[in-house]
Amino acid sequence: MAPTETLTAERILEATEEVLRRHGPAKATVVDVARALGVSHGSVYRHFRTKAALREAVTKRWLDRTSDALTGLVTETDRDPGARLRDWLRTLFEAKRRKAGDDPELFATYKVLTDENGAMVNAHLDELTGQLTRIIEDGVTDGTFTVTDPPTTARAIFDATQLFHNPAHAQQWTEPDIVTEFEALVELLMRGLRA
Amino acid sequence: MAPTETLTAERILEATEEVLRRHGPAKATVVDVARALGVSHGSVYRHFRTKAALREAVTKRWLDRTSDALTGLVTETDRDPGARLRDWLRTLFEAKRRKAGDDPELFATYKVLTDENGAMVNAHLDELTGQLTRIIEDGVTDGTFTVTDPPTTARAIFDATQLFHNPAHAQQWTEPDIVTEFEALVELLMRGLRA
Repeated sequence: MAPTETLTAERILEATEEVLRRHGPAKATVVDVARALGVSHGSVYRHFRTKAALREAVTKRWLDRTSDALTGLVTETDRDPGARLRDWLRTLFEAKRRKAGDDPELFATYKVLTDENGAMVNAHLDELTGQLTRIIEDGVTDGTFTVTDPPTTARAIFDATQLFHNPAHAQQWTEPDIVTEFEALVELLMRGLRA
Repeated sequence: MAPTETLTAERILEATEEVLRRHGPAKATVVDVARALGVSHGSVYRHFRTKAALREAVTKRWLDRTSDALTGLVTETDRDPGARLRDWLRTLFEAKRRKAGDDPELFATYKVLTDENGAMVNAHLDELTGQLTRIIEDGVTDGTFTVTDPPTTARAIFDATQLFHNPAHAQQWTEPDIVTEFEALVELLMRGLRA
């Protein structure tokens, strides 16, 4: 049973992503994933008990890549919270734009997967607004921001920047003025936080 | 030719909307519209030279209904610009929510039509941000707002409220917290404008 021993969940998820990209989310099967790995489909099922569980796990991995890229900005408590908040919003926008622009097929694939995994997406959005809340709280503590209810304000900022992170707006991310618009909006929000 | 004489463009557009709702945008034809009006399709073509022109005109009429509902707030120059700006954003959100909630089939129909009439939609969005610009300019003049570039700020406010007016977000308009989220965002934006 050597192949099973070296067959990690991470390797299966990598192969699943590649199979989804190649076959599309409607056609990709667990058998395709097993074939790509040179193992039996039973070996895959030992790690992920159903096809739905596998699709859910690969979706979580994709979403986690975004939140992991942002975590560092939350914990840099020695830096100005205003600068961290701007960087957080910019990093999120850039990560999304890159995902959509560099690999449109994979981006479209994950749009289908996130649509079918609403609970996973909601947990991801809660994590992101939780990160924003912590930066805002740091800003309240050191007097940078004047905010009475950080979680509500975090949500408002996340809502205000939908155009720059929600995949529903991906088509607009290639417009020539999009970065200028983004900077103008962030500026307005920062003024609101400092008022 | 009595039917042609009483056949106004407005009557044709009303009938077209009803035909689109009934048959769906993929199947509705000019012959269906003519039949609904009890006239020949030649009579319809006398007002709208092509099927595309008719679909464009009915889309414009739908978009104009929204901008017309907001015009009054732009010209009420005796009222506080802050209150007018809030009312403008609220009226827009409420108008969109009502359209989506009261008649989901017609809303879905117009989503297809607006997707195929991008230039018309862009003109509509320019009109809306133009209205916002005028209210912001009034606020700069009377000292309510501290804004250096009203058109850029108008665009930032319009961008910031995508979640509450862009049909791509219609599904979220029925969420229980949506109005609270809207109010929190407007509050943050108003603080940014006044800072």
